[in-house]
Amino acid sequence: MQIDFNVLKKLARPAETKIVLLVIDGLGGLPAGNNSVTELEAAKTPNMDALARRCICGLHSPFADGVTLGSGPAHLALFGYHPVKYQVGRGVLAALGVNFDLRPGDVAARGNFCTVDKEGRVTDRRAGRIDTRTTEQKLALLRDIEMEGVELHLLPVKDYRFLLVLRGDGLGADIIDTDPQSTGRKPLQAETKTGDPASEKTVNLVNDFASQAANLLHNEDPANMVLLRGFSQRPAWPGLPEIYGVTAAALANYPMYRGAARLVGMDALESEDFTVSLQTLRQIWSKYDFFFVHFKPTDSAGENGDFERKVALIEEVDGKIPEILHLEPDVICITGDHSTPATMRAHSWHPVPLIIGSPYCRPDSVHRFTEADCLAGGLGPRLPATSIMPLLMANALRLEKFGA
Amino acid sequence: MQIDFNVLKKLARPAETKIVLLVIDGLGGLPAGNNSVTELEAAKTPNMDALARRCICGLHSPFADGVTLGSGPAHLALFGYHPVKYQVGRGVLAALGVNFDLRPGDVAARGNFCTVDKEGRVTDRRAGRIDTRTTEQKLALLRDIEMEGVELHLLPVKDYRFLLVLRGDGLGADIIDTDPQSTGRKPLQAETKTGDPASEKTVNLVNDFASQAANLLHNEDPANMVLLRGFSQRPAWPGLPEIYGVTAAALANYPMYRGAARLVGMDALESEDFTVSLQTLRQIWSKYDFFFVHFKPTDSAGENGDFERKVALIEEVDGKIPEILHLEPDVICITGDHSTPATMRAHSWHPVPLIIGSPYCRPDSVHRFTEADCLAGGLGPRLPATSIMPLLMANALRLEKFGA
Repeated sequence: MQIDFNVLKKLARPAETKIVLLVIDGLGGLPAGNNSVTELEAAKTPNMDALARRCICGLHSPFADGVTLGSGPAHLALFGYHPVKYQVGRGVLAALGVNFDLRPGDVAARGNFCTVDKEGRVTDRRAGRIDTRTTEQKLALLRDIEMEGVELHLLPVKDYRFLLVLRGDGLGADIIDTDPQSTGRKPLQAETKTGDPASEKTVNLVNDFASQAANLLHNEDPANMVLLRGFSQRPAWPGLPEIYGVTAAALANYPMYRGAARLVGMDALESEDFTVSLQTLRQIWSKYDFFFVHFKPTDSAGENGDFERKVALIEEVDGKIPEILHLEPDVICITGDHSTPATMRAHSWHPVPLIIGSPYCRPDSVHRFTEADCLAGGLGPRLPATSIMPLLMANALRLEKFGA
Repeated sequence: MQIDFNVLKKLARPAETKIVLLVIDGLGGLPAGNNSVTELEAAKTPNMDALARRCICGLHSPFADGVTLGSGPAHLALFGYHPVKYQVGRGVLAALGVNFDLRPGDVAARGNFCTVDKEGRVTDRRAGRIDTRTTEQKLALLRDIEMEGVELHLLPVKDYRFLLVLRGDGLGADIIDTDPQSTGRKPLQAETKTGDPASEKTVNLVNDFASQAANLLHNEDPANMVLLRGFSQRPAWPGLPEIYGVTAAALANYPMYRGAARLVGMDALESEDFTVSLQTLRQIWSKYDFFFVHFKPTDSAGENGDFERKVALIEEVDGKIPEILHLEPDVICITGDHSTPATMRAHSWHPVPLIIGSPYCRPDSVHRFTEADCLAGGLGPRLPATSIMPLLMANALRLEKFGA
């Protein structure tokens, strides 16, 4: 059962303990091949297996059985935020991910450069996946756009993706995506879902922007149009420092994950790859007491259907575990945000293996860190993802008892 | 955790996949006899055991640990409807079960013919369990009853049971049962619990009906009086087609189960017995994509305390499993609605064994389909019954991911 943040706030107590949450993105899998083993079962993971033997294991599942989570809500659930109660748009995540100082009232959207044909129909939703540098060049053209009463911010995100922020008085974000989500169709006109006046006003600005963008990009190839989605405003949520009294840092090399981390009050540090993340972890070890370290490539391998690559990547992470343990965290948690079975080439609803290690975990009989072995673990086969953070705080002796 | 239907509606996506939910009523049991095995352990179930080996298993439990469910709420829970949030009276279930076109505003009640002595005290709450044909004859007498401003509908249900529907303007169903629930007492006068005017009006009609019925049945034997219970009006719930976009069919030979199925938007097809149900299943296979198949006799055997009979019936069902598998459903789920241990001669709160099979289930170490073996299953020992439907839809690839 999920506990209310207001209760947790009252229970939080100061401590010197340090917690590492290592997220191996898309970790869980499904059996494949002749041996009928999962990616994690196929991988040689002596370090995680050793941890599993002396720690407590289990599997966690998102807020509702059978429901597959996207990356944003999956991470928010891991940070303890119920994915339905705490919903946020792509635009806000993108803004936070690129370190943009998003203020209350700003409206943010995630943009894609795309390719349209002469009739204006989308032929490629990602404009041939142009790189970040090219995206920066195209954005320079769009910065000529002027609209009365509103300040325009355009920043590259990654590859063909960019961030659009509208800053002005009385804006609203109840706006549908202009991305038609398939080729052969024209970009949609922005419109509001409920017709609230602030969003109506913003709709006009968005359509003006899209129309000016079409003119300015007319002669470009392949990035001759933009698609916008995830219009949203920054929500006012209690952050992890406020709830638990921790200072928290995120080490992730994809903007979206840094965005999710910032949204819950972490300092998010850019990081080229996992090796750099671990170097940074050592450098900032004394400055923070909660560390979220993100490893992305396993999820990408799963989405590409590359079973062997996912196995190799899991082994790569396993090889780095001693570097983390060398720092002697009081609590270590290793898990994924969701499953991404290579056989499904997509995120899935299957529960995700989980280890929690601390001097106060009650060890179980799990000897290997696999989906099947974790079923017998002390954390059970379906721990709600939102229960993980309170458990980490408890293991770090950062929660008082409730009641006398 | 249960997910809101509104969220599920947004996640549902069209698919061609087919799902079979086979409910072996009262499946779960308790150990008995010298061997101290449950009914399911005593039964030879090679087909279900084979499924258990290649699929995912577990036990489900209704919405609250320790709470025993009646047949109506137990089925609604299996269909994903929280038994406390989605409550419905026996009257409505009976009406839907006999294909009566119950309209909004109608008040339905389940009636029993009973036997009363000269003082009007109930001596047999079921009038010697008269058969359906006899019940039809007695109802013919009662159809002479006339009451101003209200249309009366009387239909036989099964054996001594019948359906009473009052149709008119401004009726209410907040009315206590007239069934005293024990012999030696007189039928109760109808009265409202809260005194709302619509129900007050209806109370007068009900008492008038009971009094006229007593006169008309005065010389009958043994069915010389009626008892009424479960006064209710049809609720407006979202149905499975609306939530998940499935076309759903129910195959059940007891009216109550067809009624529960209709209440959640299934087409309920009458079926003499399980053999006929499976024949019909083949015939309608191309027309629907969700099939609820109900097997009742196991529950009756449990309620009769007939351990050996329940074992034999479980084996009978197991023998038919290949007929279902032959249709190649994308997802198959075999479970019960609740436990009915023969040793208890009643429904019980004990979790119910459960198999879910699909190309996307993550197999576990369960080798036999029994209560004890399922404890080690991947679905865990206490899966909420309301989680089953979302899991079936996920396994049928009928749910989009939540959030980006």
